[in-house]
Amino acid sequence: MQIYADNAATTKMSDAAITAMTDCMQSFWGNPSSLYTIGQVAKEKLEEARGEIARIINAEPREILFTSGGSEADNQALLSAAMIGKKKGRTHIISSMFEHHAILHTLQKLEKNGFTMTYLPVHENGIVRIEELEDAITEDTCLVTIMTANNEIGTIQPITQIGELCRKRGVIFHTDAVQAVGHLPIDVKAQSIDMLSASAHKFHGPKGVGFLYVKKGIVLSSLIEGGAQERGKRAGTENLPGILSMTAALKEAVAGMEAHNVHQKQVRDHLIQGLSEIPHSALNGDAVSRLSGNVNFSFEGIEGESLLILLDQKGISASSGSACTSGALDPSHVLLAIGRIHDVAHGSLRLSIGEEITMEEADYIIEAVKEVVAYLRSFSPVWRDLMAGKKEFILK
Amino acid sequence: MQIYADNAATTKMSDAAITAMTDCMQSFWGNPSSLYTIGQVAKEKLEEARGEIARIINAEPREILFTSGGSEADNQALLSAAMIGKKKGRTHIISSMFEHHAILHTLQKLEKNGFTMTYLPVHENGIVRIEELEDAITEDTCLVTIMTANNEIGTIQPITQIGELCRKRGVIFHTDAVQAVGHLPIDVKAQSIDMLSASAHKFHGPKGVGFLYVKKGIVLSSLIEGGAQERGKRAGTENLPGILSMTAALKEAVAGMEAHNVHQKQVRDHLIQGLSEIPHSALNGDAVSRLSGNVNFSFEGIEGESLLILLDQKGISASSGSACTSGALDPSHVLLAIGRIHDVAHGSLRLSIGEEITMEEADYIIEAVKEVVAYLRSFSPVWRDLMAGKKEFILK
Repeated sequence: MQIYADNAATTKMSDAAITAMTDCMQSFWGNPSSLYTIGQVAKEKLEEARGEIARIINAEPREILFTSGGSEADNQALLSAAMIGKKKGRTHIISSMFEHHAILHTLQKLEKNGFTMTYLPVHENGIVRIEELEDAITEDTCLVTIMTANNEIGTIQPITQIGELCRKRGVIFHTDAVQAVGHLPIDVKAQSIDMLSASAHKFHGPKGVGFLYVKKGIVLSSLIEGGAQERGKRAGTENLPGILSMTAALKEAVAGMEAHNVHQKQVRDHLIQGLSEIPHSALNGDAVSRLSGNVNFSFEGIEGESLLILLDQKGISASSGSACTSGALDPSHVLLAIGRIHDVAHGSLRLSIGEEITMEEADYIIEAVKEVVAYLRSFSPVWRDLMAGKKEFILK
Repeated sequence: MQIYADNAATTKMSDAAITAMTDCMQSFWGNPSSLYTIGQVAKEKLEEARGEIARIINAEPREILFTSGGSEADNQALLSAAMIGKKKGRTHIISSMFEHHAILHTLQKLEKNGFTMTYLPVHENGIVRIEELEDAITEDTCLVTIMTANNEIGTIQPITQIGELCRKRGVIFHTDAVQAVGHLPIDVKAQSIDMLSASAHKFHGPKGVGFLYVKKGIVLSSLIEGGAQERGKRAGTENLPGILSMTAALKEAVAGMEAHNVHQKQVRDHLIQGLSEIPHSALNGDAVSRLSGNVNFSFEGIEGESLLILLDQKGISASSGSACTSGALDPSHVLLAIGRIHDVAHGSLRLSIGEEITMEEADYIIEAVKEVVAYLRSFSPVWRDLMAGKKEFILK
């Protein structure tokens, strides 16, 4: 059995997305900035796509900026909001402890340039508390950036409340919605979102393309200087095949969203139920306010990497955390943020399932994980010490 | 007849490039940062591509950084070299007056941050003079950035001499080779190039992908912060389909390069010959040291935009300058740099032909341009004044 359970890292492109890409490469390959017919046809397709994306998140077309992906969108959003803040003499930024590295590393860059940061705790359930955000906002705050849903543990943040609070306090609110777009309903107006980042390859679209929603009136700074594309805010010939493919994928994802979520939730909860039977294990993050595709467990006494390799041998593709850091030896900053100690965080497994998963596959995963965890524990010195009472169990 | 003569703006993707893209989307869609088989297969493909690209320009694989295109590569190269210079207390940068806006606008950003610039003249022939570069380099110079071939007039710069001079003087040399890669032989070692930018869609590859060559030992600064992809210097899930497609396109372009150049030169010179028969016209840029695909003419007494629209009606796709600025009313900074006055620069036409062009098509273009120029002049008030002797002709 081959089961891909790492949709949070990337997704397989949908047929519609591949077709849109191929059609565009063959038929609409002109440069949208060119005056002649081939270019103008490309320009029309580009603006149609912008309109579709805008409609889906209840924005206006001019509020959509196409980028090379979620990381670029995050970088540009944060640097732009910081620049706006600086001009007003406001240099305080609020984020959370478990953001994606595209956010955290950009904030570190800003810190070196004189900005001060407050990283809100996300508590054991992996959710920021609105009252803590309220307390953190000062007259000096220029930006709040909190992700819509976490990439490792899938917990969903109270975005609408955060948006309303920021709007009331006159602070720009950006959300990294890379894990949410195409999976959760987004309405930038109803949710009072000022800026939002998305990445196509997380919703069965292509790699190398994403978008940034920017509420009109917010002046972007360019990250990539050059030509006048994207209203002068993102230089470089537009990746039209990628953009049309992303649009096709998003339309499809949104059309199927409700049904996918119902199905995935059933499978997810079945997985959580099954994996909970493993002794000394624990679900990471809130069980309810989480993405329907996300299951994240810690198992005491094992190493996540070995777990992944053995699951791969059984045909299961899964991860221990974010793919971006899978080469790193440090334990996940997300799991540390929800209070897992180093040792426990190391023995973690993220399953991010897709809409095509079946209950039979879920059962296969449960059995495989049970088997592999037991096997790894059978020669783990840590586990031996735990069982011998020389160390105390953290997970009951 | 339909003739696409704007290959400097973008090219039609080759079948090989489309196939590589489609294969990858269908078969190698894993995240290269993932540990399991699907991810590792993607990682292998990624590194194979890096090796192929490196081999083609005589670099080492680790010296190739994949980006979202030429503009991003230009931005990152310049900002990185500036950062290195700043650390050494060297803040002078040398460029030329007719670089692409991805260079010029990035340099303007650096100027605002305390760097000083020297923009070398490019003279009537559109070529920088090595002795003027030599004179411009000071103890304070940290970077020389001069394009390999110009995007509007196609003139080829003495890159090897520039590279040798910079190497001798201990100055980093970057070249925007977006118009050259896949069209001219590049050997970064033999040409003493330290950094080089390229864009796939200029050599029949996909849009939204490019690369930056960076000589080992030169420390890049990240433009996009986040995950640890590309040795920590370019965050964001790698656009593997784009990268494999670019690699397929480049291999093909390089294999056909010599034959294409021989053929294109013949057609180019035939076009130049034919268009020279139009009275009061002039070729822009050197006739010999220019890309085999580039023809750029100014015609006195007409507006370039009208010329393009009428040529489009005759099935010819051409441009008046860079596609990136085609919406702008300002005359081309490139044509101004080679000494064309405003009025003359406005009446310009760039034909950038591809390897598939035939002599019959060239004849069709010549006839069409002759006809349209005559037609436009027939009701041009400027032309009337010129003919009546009220104004003096600039172009003889």
